Amino acid sequence: MYRSHTCGELRPSHVGQTITLAGWVQTIRKFGSITFVDLRDRYGITQLVFGEELNQLLDDSPLGREYVLQITGVVEERSNKNLNIPTGEIELNVSALKILNKSVTPPFSIQDDTDGGDDLRMKYRYLDLRRNAVKRNLELRYAVNRSARNYLHENNFMDIETPFLIKSTPEGARDFVVPSRMNAGQFYALPQSPQTFKQLLMVSGYDRYYQIVKCFRDEDLRADRQPEFTQIDCEMCFVEQEDILSMFEGLVRRIFKDVKQIDYVEKIERMTWEDAMWKYGNDKPDIRFGMSLCNLKFPSHTFPGKPSMAELIDTANFPVFDNAETVVAISVSKASEYTRKQTDELIEWVKRPQIGMMGMAFIKCNPDGTFKSSIDKFYSEERLKAIASAVNAKPGDLILLLAGAEERTRKAMSELRLELGKRLGLRKENEFKLLWVLDFPLFEYDSDDNRWVARHHPFTSPKPAHIEMMINNDPVISDAAKYLEHPYANIKANAYDMVLNGNEIGGGSIRIYQRELQEKMFAALGMSKEESLHKFSFLLGAFEYGAPPHGGIAFGFDRLCAILGGSESIRDFIAFPKNNSGRDVMLDAPATIDQKQLNELQIQTVEK
Amino acid sequence: MYRSHTCGELRPSHVGQTITLAGWVQTIRKFGSITFVDLRDRYGITQLVFGEELNQLLDDSPLGREYVLQITGVVEERSNKNLNIPTGEIELNVSALKILNKSVTPPFSIQDDTDGGDDLRMKYRYLDLRRNAVKRNLELRYAVNRSARNYLHENNFMDIETPFLIKSTPEGARDFVVPSRMNAGQFYALPQSPQTFKQLLMVSGYDRYYQIVKCFRDEDLRADRQPEFTQIDCEMCFVEQEDILSMFEGLVRRIFKDVKQIDYVEKIERMTWEDAMWKYGNDKPDIRFGMSLCNLKFPSHTFPGKPSMAELIDTANFPVFDNAETVVAISVSKASEYTRKQTDELIEWVKRPQIGMMGMAFIKCNPDGTFKSSIDKFYSEERLKAIASAVNAKPGDLILLLAGAEERTRKAMSELRLELGKRLGLRKENEFKLLWVLDFPLFEYDSDDNRWVARHHPFTSPKPAHIEMMINNDPVISDAAKYLEHPYANIKANAYDMVLNGNEIGGGSIRIYQRELQEKMFAALGMSKEESLHKFSFLLGAFEYGAPPHGGIAFGFDRLCAILGGSESIRDFIAFPKNNSGRDVMLDAPATIDQKQLNELQIQTVEK
Repeated sequence: MYRSHTCGELRPSHVGQTITLAGWVQTIRKFGSITFVDLRDRYGITQLVFGEELNQLLDDSPLGREYVLQITGVVEERSNKNLNIPTGEIELNVSALKILNKSVTPPFSIQDDTDGGDDLRMKYRYLDLRRNAVKRNLELRYAVNRSARNYLHENNFMDIETPFLIKSTPEGARDFVVPSRMNAGQFYALPQSPQTFKQLLMVSGYDRYYQIVKCFRDEDLRADRQPEFTQIDCEMCFVEQEDILSMFEGLVRRIFKDVKQIDYVEKIERMTWEDAMWKYGNDKPDIRFGMSLCNLKFPSHTFPGKPSMAELIDTANFPVFDNAETVVAISVSKASEYTRKQTDELIEWVKRPQIGMMGMAFIKCNPDGTFKSSIDKFYSEERLKAIASAVNAKPGDLILLLAGAEERTRKAMSELRLELGKRLGLRKENEFKLLWVLDFPLFEYDSDDNRWVARHHPFTSPKPAHIEMMINNDPVISDAAKYLEHPYANIKANAYDMVLNGNEIGGGSIRIYQRELQEKMFAALGMSKEESLHKFSFLLGAFEYGAPPHGGIAFGFDRLCAILGGSESIRDFIAFPKNNSGRDVMLDAPATIDQKQLNELQIQTVEK
Repeated sequence: MYRSHTCGELRPSHVGQTITLAGWVQTIRKFGSITFVDLRDRYGITQLVFGEELNQLLDDSPLGREYVLQITGVVEERSNKNLNIPTGEIELNVSALKILNKSVTPPFSIQDDTDGGDDLRMKYRYLDLRRNAVKRNLELRYAVNRSARNYLHENNFMDIETPFLIKSTPEGARDFVVPSRMNAGQFYALPQSPQTFKQLLMVSGYDRYYQIVKCFRDEDLRADRQPEFTQIDCEMCFVEQEDILSMFEGLVRRIFKDVKQIDYVEKIERMTWEDAMWKYGNDKPDIRFGMSLCNLKFPSHTFPGKPSMAELIDTANFPVFDNAETVVAISVSKASEYTRKQTDELIEWVKRPQIGMMGMAFIKCNPDGTFKSSIDKFYSEERLKAIASAVNAKPGDLILLLAGAEERTRKAMSELRLELGKRLGLRKENEFKLLWVLDFPLFEYDSDDNRWVARHHPFTSPKPAHIEMMINNDPVISDAAKYLEHPYANIKANAYDMVLNGNEIGGGSIRIYQRELQEKMFAALGMSKEESLHKFSFLLGAFEYGAPPHGGIAFGFDRLCAILGGSESIRDFIAFPKNNSGRDVMLDAPATIDQKQLNELQIQTVEK
């Protein structure tokens, strides 16, 4: 060992002891004939004092930032204590110094607030990782990992490794593939998730499986997606939805407790997918704040059974609302006195291409009970009052109204709500609100191919009450315009997402475990019998040998860590992330490979 | 939940309770109007009793092997107790039965001794995994995983995930590569190990890293190799070899304790590589038994300093020994009375192509003190006696002698020793003997290219005393015939292997952490400056910013589990293994992929 103690370990109780430390030079401060050096390692920082008698030594071997030192000295009490750090009551009076390695000047400062830009930090990731801010993230990640493993172990889950070199069965996202040298012309795929393997393990009777495992998706990378990412992947036998919800509420509570020292004792809210879309325009609503949507107008088939309030805005000869499929409103508390500049800015915000609305109407609910609106021309004070009452706006509030096509308008209002929540400080970094979203639709309509696609994945089971509806109907959509009237549009899934502060952190489902139903599902997705056998004969086969009812969930480990760490970016919680082009700029990968390698693999590259 | 208890849980204390179980039908036995069914789940087996009143139910819904049932009934004490299983004192008197899923007849029996051949078992791996024998292996694997993580956590190691999509830097084994769609013409590689990443984490100051991680090597698969395999990968900062040895002795002792309930308290033996080759002809000797080699003759440069015993066999005009580079002998205890048939069989054994010797000489040390030998013609009784004394043979022993080229002869004798150890019952399955092999050569000679290759990997440091020898000499071998006289042939590495019962279970080294030395190493391996920068500029760069001394080790997780489980095959300890052609026969992978996928990746396959 190059050291007897770490740089985070020494306390007043060590005073008088001769000890040896090893670490990195964080700072050097010279005061006359005395030099102070802060020596850093993973565990902390210890102040070193080089007295007069060591001047010669320092002159012979000058120190620099990030030099690696081995130091021996006597622990002394500091006269000028620093109570902000655990080692701040002592210092080390150095008697011997060995420079273990030198450092050239780092390209950016190794501090919490670094002067390094993103590109530089990624190129020198090994230096960026030295910064406390990044180190804390990876420590948090390890704490979540450890906490999850302990909880799952205590609940009888077994970590079972599933293979990485599997078969390509693209459905939804693209697979990364791996050419096989021993089986020329053939390819492995990297798993998008261990989905079918964990189901096979249930068929095999392993009862409770988990894995913290890398998954791969070759997608065009939107901001904050990575081609390789990590899941906490779990599956259980002989369970119904309620069993899964309660088991994994326990997991998340445990992580909060272990990692954030938060007793999340309150009941975890649950909401159907339909209510989430109705109240928040979003299937992963942030419920740390209200400001829910008021649905003034909507297509009758989208929310069967929800009350219409169209009479509040109808017959006003306001073409924007008259022609719109959907009109939604929110009420912003205590914002009635926004200036013209402020309301204009909000209008510009929803007109940005990312949001894509043509405009926005507003109603100011003045503190004196009167109204001022951008649609005064069309709506009487009385009608404005009725709208305000429907939106639950109080005097002093500002009502914002969006109108247009259903999907876009609802999405835009959801975005606007989140933006206002952020601006008004309602999305507090240290507040955590969990939510289950339940009863997702089993299918989504793909208008390009006029067919059904699986909203979750093809292994998700319909609600028991909907199985007959699925089996007994032909999935073919004869009239594309009326796809919403097809029975499949109303089939709900035994699927659930866990949402934390407006982010989906986990999702899962009760699975299909009957061959007949699984075959019907593949057919519903437009797969021919041959194709489904080519891709999934092992799973269909397994279902014939006593497959038990089962279900599971997968948590997005990177995102969970980022949210717990109070960050919007997963990249800061991954030791060696890739950039938005899927490149590792530190390694300079991907890269060309030798012709010899290509020859051995019997492939060649082709220019488009 | 489909059940109130598991099939391994019920005891006499539950008698009288009404409970619900779910599981698989293991056996069905009918006695008159009563039917007994053994119901199985991961946790055990419970006997179900279907009384007379349920006959109709069973007639309506006949049961079969591997059917999945949900059963409700009352726990009763058994009159005929089975004390071999924990639930053997009770049985369940069934009052309600639900068949959750049926099963067709499995292609082999789900029992410890199955009638399924390897191919069938692999195709239906999900059924094979139901067998207790396989389940026990995966449970052991999880126990090793858990034990290792606990020990490493308690010793301040952090699990940090390293990337899977990296850069191809083939050195030794071939890389699996992954074409990049977003960076056409370029490829990622899958890691052969996280070696450089864990070193970067040390440069970043993470101090103690570990990961239980998949690694990939595209090698021609010899028996019991897998293209993807798992390592327990570890690295530490500010350590010397002794620190690593002691830390990981602790890890293995802990695993023995947790997994096998064995207190491995004895000192773990250590042996230099040179002594291992000298005494056992093998760098991973099985030291559960003796029978060590007697080196009668060997090339003077291979073991400098070891005593020659050539005079014992010289000047006998026996051309086989006279012309041989190497003559080695072992003494087999109490085997002097082997028949001609038995000695002939041993001679045939060493003449098999896998061993490749031309023949074998023997000397029988008769119990009466006389000798009988296949080389009587050349050696007098007195000379035979002298040889016997050198080999430490006692009356009643059988001496076996092999002669030939150094490497092949030593290897053959090592194989023969292991074979005899096995035949004589000296390699006991329940005995475990650990050994450190130390001081490996840093380089190996590659006669094809007349150059040096790294014996371990290019990041292993030479012994401190040999650094100067490495830096100050030109690696070029001017005279291939005299490569052993090149200074590089004598450079020893700070490398160590942990050996268990004759298997290498782990290996590691203290690493190079100085740019100059690392560059010299790359040059010594014949890499041009450009090539080393193209492949490893990130690492060479990192060494300029304060790289600390560091070292580590990686354990072969699959093999460690197999040995602890008393098996020679790692395949039985992997949930979904591949066969010797790298195929997953259950998935039927690898497979061809769509032309659309190839087009997107801008690659095509070519026929050889």
